[in-house]
Amino acid sequence: MVKKKHRGLVQIFTGTGKGKTTAALGTILRASGQGLRVFIVFFMKGKYPYGEFSTLPLLPNVDVVSFGLRCFIKQSKVKPEEIEQAVLALAAAREAMLGGKYDIIVLDEVNIALWYNLIALDDIIKLIEDKPPEVELILTGRYADPKLIELADLVTEMVKLKHPYDKGIRARRGIEY
Amino acid sequence: MVKKKHRGLVQIFTGTGKGKTTAALGTILRASGQGLRVFIVFFMKGKYPYGEFSTLPLLPNVDVVSFGLRCFIKQSKVKPEEIEQAVLALAAAREAMLGGKYDIIVLDEVNIALWYNLIALDDIIKLIEDKPPEVELILTGRYADPKLIELADLVTEMVKLKHPYDKGIRARRGIEY
Repeated sequence: MVKKKHRGLVQIFTGTGKGKTTAALGTILRASGQGLRVFIVFFMKGKYPYGEFSTLPLLPNVDVVSFGLRCFIKQSKVKPEEIEQAVLALAAAREAMLGGKYDIIVLDEVNIALWYNLIALDDIIKLIEDKPPEVELILTGRYADPKLIELADLVTEMVKLKHPYDKGIRARRGIEY
Repeated sequence: MVKKKHRGLVQIFTGTGKGKTTAALGTILRASGQGLRVFIVFFMKGKYPYGEFSTLPLLPNVDVVSFGLRCFIKQSKVKPEEIEQAVLALAAAREAMLGGKYDIIVLDEVNIALWYNLIALDDIIKLIEDKPPEVELILTGRYADPKLIELADLVTEMVKLKHPYDKGIRARRGIEY
Protein backbone atom coordinates (compact mmCIF):
# COMPACT_ATOMS: atom_id res chain seq x y z
CA MET A 1 0.00 0.00 0.00
CA VAL A 2 1.02 3.58 -0.48
CA LYS A 3 2.25 5.08 2.75
CA LYS A 4 2.74 8.72 2.01
CA LYS A 5 -0.45 10.46 0.90
CA HIS A 6 0.06 12.99 -1.83
CA ARG A 7 -2.26 15.82 -2.64
CA GLY A 8 -5.10 14.71 -4.88
CA LEU A 9 -5.71 16.75 -8.00
CA VAL A 10 -8.57 17.28 -10.40
CA GLN A 11 -7.70 15.92 -13.83
CA ILE A 12 -9.66 16.38 -17.06
CA PHE A 13 -9.21 14.46 -20.31
CA THR A 14 -11.15 16.22 -23.06
CA GLY A 15 -11.02 17.01 -26.78
CA THR A 16 -12.34 15.21 -29.85
CA GLY A 17 -9.35 12.92 -30.35
CA LYS A 18 -9.03 9.31 -29.29
CA GLY A 19 -7.74 8.36 -25.86
CA LYS A 20 -9.81 10.11 -23.20
CA THR A 21 -11.54 7.11 -21.65
CA THR A 22 -8.58 4.86 -22.42
CA ALA A 23 -6.19 7.29 -20.68
CA ALA A 24 -8.44 7.12 -17.60
CA LEU A 25 -8.49 3.32 -17.84
CA GLY A 26 -4.71 3.23 -18.16
CA THR A 27 -4.41 5.50 -15.14
CA ILE A 28 -6.51 2.98 -13.20
CA LEU A 29 -4.32 0.08 -14.37
CA ARG A 30 -1.26 1.98 -13.16
CA ALA A 31 -2.80 3.14 -9.86
CA SER A 32 -4.10 -0.32 -9.01
CA GLY A 33 -0.59 -1.64 -9.54
CA GLN A 34 0.67 0.78 -6.89
CA GLY A 35 -1.96 -0.27 -4.36
CA LEU A 36 -4.27 2.72 -4.80
CA ARG A 37 -8.02 2.18 -4.47
CA VAL A 38 -10.12 3.32 -7.40
CA PHE A 39 -13.81 3.89 -8.06
CA ILE A 40 -14.94 4.45 -11.64
CA VAL A 41 -18.44 5.44 -12.65
CA PHE A 42 -19.38 5.33 -16.32
CA PHE A 43 -21.95 7.87 -17.50
CA MET A 44 -24.21 7.11 -20.47
CA LYS A 45 -22.68 3.72 -21.19
CA GLY A 46 -25.15 1.37 -19.50
CA LYS A 47 -24.44 -2.27 -20.17
CA TYR A 48 -22.95 -1.74 -23.62
CA PRO A 49 -20.32 -4.49 -24.00
CA TYR A 50 -17.16 -2.42 -23.67
CA GLY A 51 -14.08 -4.59 -23.27
CA GLU A 52 -13.07 -2.85 -20.06
CA PHE A 53 -16.16 -4.15 -18.27
CA SER A 54 -14.59 -7.64 -18.40
CA THR A 55 -11.09 -6.67 -17.32
CA LEU A 56 -11.51 -3.84 -14.77
CA PRO A 57 -12.88 -6.39 -12.22
CA LEU A 58 -9.59 -8.30 -12.51
CA LEU A 59 -7.66 -5.36 -11.02
CA PRO A 60 -7.13 -5.20 -7.26
CA ASN A 61 -8.95 -2.43 -5.37
CA VAL A 62 -10.98 -1.24 -8.36
CA ASP A 63 -14.77 -0.85 -8.13
CA VAL A 64 -16.88 -0.19 -11.20
CA VAL A 65 -20.43 1.03 -11.73
CA SER A 66 -22.12 1.96 -14.99
CA PHE A 67 -25.22 4.04 -15.66
CA GLY A 68 -27.16 5.16 -18.71
CA LEU A 69 -29.29 3.72 -21.45
CA ARG A 70 -27.62 1.81 -24.20
CA CYS A 71 -28.99 3.83 -27.09
CA PHE A 72 -27.38 7.05 -28.21
CA ILE A 73 -29.29 10.19 -27.33
CA LYS A 74 -30.01 13.42 -29.14
CA GLN A 75 -29.56 16.71 -27.36
CA SER A 76 -32.95 17.85 -28.60
CA LYS A 77 -34.73 14.74 -27.37
CA VAL A 78 -33.41 13.56 -24.01
CA LYS A 79 -35.42 10.85 -22.26
CA PRO A 80 -36.22 11.33 -18.56
CA GLU A 81 -34.65 7.94 -17.84
CA GLU A 82 -31.35 9.18 -19.24
CA ILE A 83 -31.40 12.15 -16.88
CA GLU A 84 -32.29 9.90 -13.97
CA GLN A 85 -29.39 7.58 -14.78
CA ALA A 86 -26.89 10.46 -14.98
CA VAL A 87 -28.10 11.90 -11.69
CA LEU A 88 -27.64 8.48 -10.08
CA ALA A 89 -24.15 8.24 -11.59
CA LEU A 90 -23.12 11.59 -10.13
CA ALA A 91 -24.59 10.64 -6.74
CA ALA A 92 -22.61 7.39 -6.80
CA ALA A 93 -19.40 9.32 -7.55
CA ARG A 94 -20.11 11.74 -4.71
CA GLU A 95 -20.81 8.99 -2.22
CA ALA A 96 -17.64 7.15 -3.20
CA MET A 97 -15.59 10.37 -3.02
CA LEU A 98 -16.80 11.21 0.48
CA GLY A 99 -16.77 7.65 1.83
CA GLY A 100 -13.03 7.56 2.55
CA LYS A 101 -12.53 4.22 0.84
CA TYR A 102 -10.98 5.42 -2.43
CA ASP A 103 -7.87 7.30 -3.55
CA ILE A 104 -9.07 7.97 -7.09
CA ILE A 105 -12.58 8.64 -8.42
CA VAL A 106 -13.10 8.53 -12.20
CA LEU A 107 -16.23 10.04 -13.77
CA ASP A 108 -16.10 8.72 -17.31
CA GLU A 109 -17.98 10.84 -19.90
CA VAL A 110 -19.23 13.23 -17.24
CA ASN A 111 -18.40 16.13 -19.57
CA ILE A 112 -20.78 14.75 -22.17
CA ALA A 113 -23.51 14.17 -19.57
CA LEU A 114 -23.19 17.85 -18.70
CA TRP A 115 -23.11 18.90 -22.34
CA TYR A 116 -26.43 17.08 -22.82
CA ASN A 117 -27.77 18.83 -19.71
CA LEU A 118 -28.41 15.52 -17.98
CA ILE A 119 -26.77 16.92 -14.87
CA ALA A 120 -26.16 20.46 -13.61
CA LEU A 121 -22.83 22.28 -13.80
CA ASP A 122 -23.31 23.45 -10.21
CA ASP A 123 -23.49 19.86 -8.99
CA ILE A 124 -20.16 19.03 -10.59
CA ILE A 125 -18.61 22.21 -9.20
CA LYS A 126 -19.89 21.23 -5.76
CA LEU A 127 -18.34 17.78 -6.19
CA ILE A 128 -14.97 19.39 -6.93
CA GLU A 129 -15.32 21.86 -4.03
CA ASP A 130 -16.17 19.06 -1.59
CA LYS A 131 -13.30 16.83 -2.69
CA PRO A 132 -11.24 15.57 0.26
CA PRO A 133 -7.66 16.88 -0.24
CA GLU A 134 -6.09 13.45 -0.69
CA VAL A 135 -8.58 12.18 -3.30
CA GLU A 136 -7.81 12.41 -7.03
CA LEU A 137 -10.77 13.21 -9.31
CA ILE A 138 -10.62 12.37 -13.01
CA LEU A 139 -13.27 13.70 -15.40
CA THR A 140 -13.40 12.56 -19.02
CA GLY A 141 -15.37 13.42 -22.13
CA ARG A 142 -15.26 15.89 -24.97
CA TYR A 143 -16.64 19.43 -24.63
CA ALA A 144 -15.41 19.97 -21.06
CA ASP A 145 -17.08 23.05 -19.61
CA PRO A 146 -14.70 26.05 -19.36
CA LYS A 147 -15.61 26.47 -15.70
CA LEU A 148 -14.48 22.89 -14.98
CA ILE A 149 -11.24 23.48 -16.88
CA GLU A 150 -10.70 26.55 -14.72
CA LEU A 151 -11.18 24.52 -11.53
CA ALA A 152 -9.02 21.58 -12.63
CA ASP A 153 -5.30 21.20 -11.92
CA LEU A 154 -4.36 19.05 -14.89
CA VAL A 155 -6.14 19.31 -18.21
CA THR A 156 -5.22 17.41 -21.34
CA GLU A 157 -6.89 17.88 -24.69
CA MET A 158 -6.81 14.91 -27.03
CA VAL A 159 -6.48 16.46 -30.48
CA LYS A 160 -7.28 14.44 -33.56
CA LEU A 161 -4.46 14.83 -36.06
CA LYS A 162 -5.69 11.90 -38.17
CA HIS A 163 -8.64 9.58 -37.62
CA PRO A 164 -9.76 6.55 -39.62
CA TYR A 165 -13.43 7.53 -39.26
CA ASP A 166 -12.55 10.24 -41.74
CA LYS A 167 -11.72 7.47 -44.21
CA GLY A 168 -14.98 5.67 -43.48
CA ILE A 169 -13.63 3.01 -41.12
CA ARG A 170 -16.18 2.28 -38.39
CA ALA A 171 -15.68 1.59 -34.68
CA ARG A 172 -13.99 -1.79 -34.18
CA ARG A 173 -14.67 -4.22 -31.37
CA GLY A 174 -11.72 -4.53 -29.02
CA ILE A 175 -10.21 -1.26 -30.20
CA GLU A 176 -12.87 1.44 -29.98
CA TYR A 177 -15.15 -0.36 -27.52
CA MET B 1 -12.65 -14.77 -28.95
CA VAL B 2 -13.15 -12.31 -31.75
CA LYS B 3 -14.38 -14.09 -34.84
CA LYS B 4 -14.33 -11.46 -37.53
CA LYS B 5 -10.90 -9.99 -38.15
CA HIS B 6 -10.92 -6.29 -38.83
CA ARG B 7 -8.23 -4.38 -40.60
CA GLY B 8 -5.41 -3.44 -38.26
CA LEU B 9 -4.32 0.16 -38.23
CA VAL B 10 -1.26 2.09 -37.17
CA GLN B 11 -2.04 4.35 -34.22
CA ILE B 12 0.17 7.04 -32.71
CA PHE B 13 -0.28 8.79 -29.36
CA THR B 14 2.06 11.77 -29.21
CA GLY B 15 2.27 15.32 -27.83
CA THR B 16 3.58 16.76 -24.58
CA GLY B 17 0.35 16.34 -22.61
CA LYS B 18 -0.48 13.56 -20.17
CA GLY B 19 -2.12 10.35 -21.32
CA LYS B 20 -0.04 8.80 -24.10
CA THR B 21 1.18 5.68 -22.33
CA THR B 22 -1.99 5.50 -20.23
CA ALA B 23 -4.16 5.64 -23.38
CA ALA B 24 -2.18 2.70 -24.76
CA LEU B 25 -2.58 0.86 -21.44
CA GLY B 26 -6.32 1.55 -21.46
CA THR B 27 -6.53 0.28 -25.03
CA ILE B 28 -4.90 -2.94 -23.81
CA LEU B 29 -7.36 -3.23 -20.90
CA ARG B 30 -10.23 -2.85 -23.38
CA ALA B 31 -8.79 -5.18 -26.03
CA SER B 32 -8.00 -7.90 -23.52
CA GLY B 33 -11.62 -7.73 -22.36
CA GLN B 34 -12.73 -8.48 -25.91
CA GLY B 35 -10.43 -11.48 -26.23
CA LEU B 36 -7.75 -9.80 -28.34
CA ARG B 37 -4.13 -10.85 -27.83
CA VAL B 38 -1.70 -8.07 -27.03
CA PHE B 39 2.07 -7.67 -26.90
CA ILE B 40 3.51 -4.54 -25.33
CA VAL B 41 7.16 -3.60 -25.38
CA PHE B 42 8.34 -0.74 -23.21
CA PHE B 43 11.29 1.29 -24.52
CA MET B 44 13.64 3.08 -22.13
CA LYS B 45 11.75 2.06 -18.99
CA GLY B 46 13.78 -0.93 -17.80
CA LYS B 47 12.68 -2.20 -14.43
CA TYR B 48 11.50 1.15 -13.09
CA PRO B 49 8.57 0.35 -10.76
CA TYR B 50 5.68 1.58 -12.88
CA GLY B 51 2.31 0.46 -11.49
CA GLU B 52 1.31 -1.16 -14.77
CA PHE B 53 4.11 -3.74 -14.44
CA SER B 54 2.12 -5.29 -11.56
CA THR B 55 -1.30 -5.24 -13.19
CA LEU B 56 -0.70 -5.92 -16.92
CA PRO B 57 0.16 -9.57 -16.09
CA LEU B 58 -3.33 -9.94 -14.56
CA LEU B 59 -4.98 -9.37 -17.95
CA PRO B 60 -5.72 -12.36 -20.18
CA ASN B 61 -3.71 -12.67 -23.40
CA VAL B 62 -1.35 -9.80 -22.63
CA ASP B 63 2.42 -10.27 -22.83
CA VAL B 64 4.82 -7.63 -21.57
CA VAL B 65 8.51 -6.99 -22.06
CA SER B 66 10.53 -3.98 -20.94
CA PHE B 67 13.91 -2.70 -22.09
CA GLY B 68 16.18 0.18 -21.24
CA LEU B 69 18.31 1.45 -18.41
CA ARG B 70 16.63 2.94 -15.42
CA CYS B 71 18.42 6.26 -15.46
CA PHE B 72 17.31 9.10 -17.66
CA ILE B 73 19.54 9.80 -20.62
CA LYS B 74 20.81 12.94 -22.30
CA GLN B 75 20.65 13.26 -26.06
CA SER B 76 24.24 14.47 -26.10
CA LYS B 77 25.51 11.57 -24.04
CA VAL B 78 23.81 8.31 -24.95
CA LYS B 79 25.32 5.14 -23.50
CA PRO B 80 25.94 2.22 -25.88
CA GLU B 81 23.89 -0.01 -23.54
CA GLU B 82 20.87 2.24 -24.04
CA ILE B 83 21.15 1.85 -27.81
CA GLU B 84 21.54 -1.88 -27.44
CA GLN B 85 18.42 -2.09 -25.25
CA ALA B 86 16.33 -0.07 -27.71
CA VAL B 87 17.48 -2.20 -30.64
CA LEU B 88 16.48 -5.31 -28.68
CA ALA B 89 13.10 -3.74 -27.90
CA LEU B 90 12.41 -3.04 -31.57
CA ALA B 91 13.50 -6.55 -32.52
CA ALA B 92 11.13 -7.99 -29.90
CA ALA B 93 8.24 -5.94 -31.32
CA ARG B 94 9.06 -7.08 -34.84
CA GLU B 95 9.23 -10.73 -33.86
CA ALA B 96 5.92 -10.49 -32.00
CA MET B 97 4.30 -8.67 -34.93
CA LEU B 98 5.38 -11.29 -37.45
CA GLY B 99 4.79 -14.32 -35.21
CA GLY B 100 1.03 -14.50 -35.80
CA LYS B 101 0.24 -14.78 -32.09
CA TYR B 102 -0.92 -11.20 -31.44
CA ASP B 103 -3.68 -8.87 -32.60
CA ILE B 104 -2.15 -5.71 -31.15
CA ILE B 105 1.49 -4.69 -30.75
CA VAL B 106 2.25 -1.66 -28.57
CA LEU B 107 5.64 0.06 -28.76
CA ASP B 108 5.60 2.33 -25.74
CA GLU B 109 7.90 5.38 -25.96
CA VAL B 110 9.27 4.28 -29.31
CA ASN B 111 8.96 7.88 -30.54
CA ILE B 112 11.32 9.00 -27.81
CA ALA B 113 13.76 6.19 -28.55
CA LEU B 114 13.85 7.45 -32.14
CA TRP B 115 14.16 11.07 -31.04
CA TYR B 116 17.26 10.07 -29.01
CA ASN B 117 18.57 8.24 -32.09
CA LEU B 118 18.67 4.95 -30.22
CA ILE B 119 17.01 3.30 -33.20
CA ALA B 120 16.78 4.22 -36.88
CA LEU B 121 13.74 5.77 -38.52
CA ASP B 122 14.10 3.34 -41.43
CA ASP B 123 13.74 0.37 -39.09
CA ILE B 124 10.44 1.69 -37.73
CA ILE B 125 9.23 2.43 -41.25
CA LYS B 126 10.12 -1.13 -42.22
CA LEU B 127 8.17 -2.42 -39.20
CA ILE B 128 5.10 -0.51 -40.39
CA GLU B 129 5.57 -1.65 -44.00
CA ASP B 130 5.88 -5.30 -42.94
CA LYS B 131 2.83 -5.20 -40.66
CA PRO B 132 0.42 -8.08 -41.36
CA PRO B 133 -2.92 -6.52 -42.44
CA GLU B 134 -4.86 -7.76 -39.40
CA VAL B 135 -2.38 -6.57 -36.77
CA GLU B 136 -2.86 -3.22 -34.98
CA LEU B 137 0.32 -1.27 -34.22
CA ILE B 138 0.34 1.39 -31.50
CA LEU B 139 3.29 3.75 -31.13
CA THR B 140 3.54 6.15 -28.20
CA GLY B 141 5.80 8.96 -27.08
CA ARG B 142 6.22 12.68 -27.61
CA TYR B 143 8.00 14.10 -30.66
CA ALA B 144 6.59 11.56 -33.15
CA ASP B 145 8.55 11.77 -36.39
CA PRO B 146 6.56 13.47 -39.21
CA LYS B 147 7.26 10.52 -41.48
CA LEU B 148 5.63 8.14 -38.96
CA ILE B 149 2.64 10.47 -38.64
CA GLU B 150 2.33 10.37 -42.42
CA LEU B 151 2.33 6.56 -42.44
CA ALA B 152 -0.12 6.18 -39.51
CA ASP B 153 -3.89 5.86 -39.82
CA LEU B 154 -4.88 7.32 -36.47
CA VAL B 155 -2.84 10.02 -34.77
CA THR B 156 -3.78 11.73 -31.54
CA GLU B 157 -1.83 14.58 -30.00
CA MET B 158 -2.12 14.94 -26.24
CA VAL B 159 -2.01 18.70 -25.68
CA LYS B 160 -1.27 20.10 -22.25
CA LEU B 161 -3.83 22.76 -21.40
CA LYS B 162 -2.85 22.80 -17.73
CA HIS B 163 -0.26 20.75 -15.87
CA PRO B 164 0.60 20.67 -12.17
CA TYR B 165 4.34 20.41 -12.94
CA ASP B 166 3.99 24.05 -13.93
CA LYS B 167 2.98 24.71 -10.32
CA GLY B 168 5.95 22.74 -8.99
CA ILE B 169 4.10 19.51 -8.14
CA ARG B 170 6.35 16.53 -8.85
CA ALA B 171 5.50 13.12 -10.32
CA ARG B 172 3.37 11.12 -7.92
CA ARG B 173 3.51 7.37 -7.35
CA GLY B 174 0.38 5.61 -8.59
CA ILE B 175 -0.58 8.54 -10.78
CA GLU B 176 2.38 9.47 -12.97
CA TYR B 177 4.25 6.17 -12.63
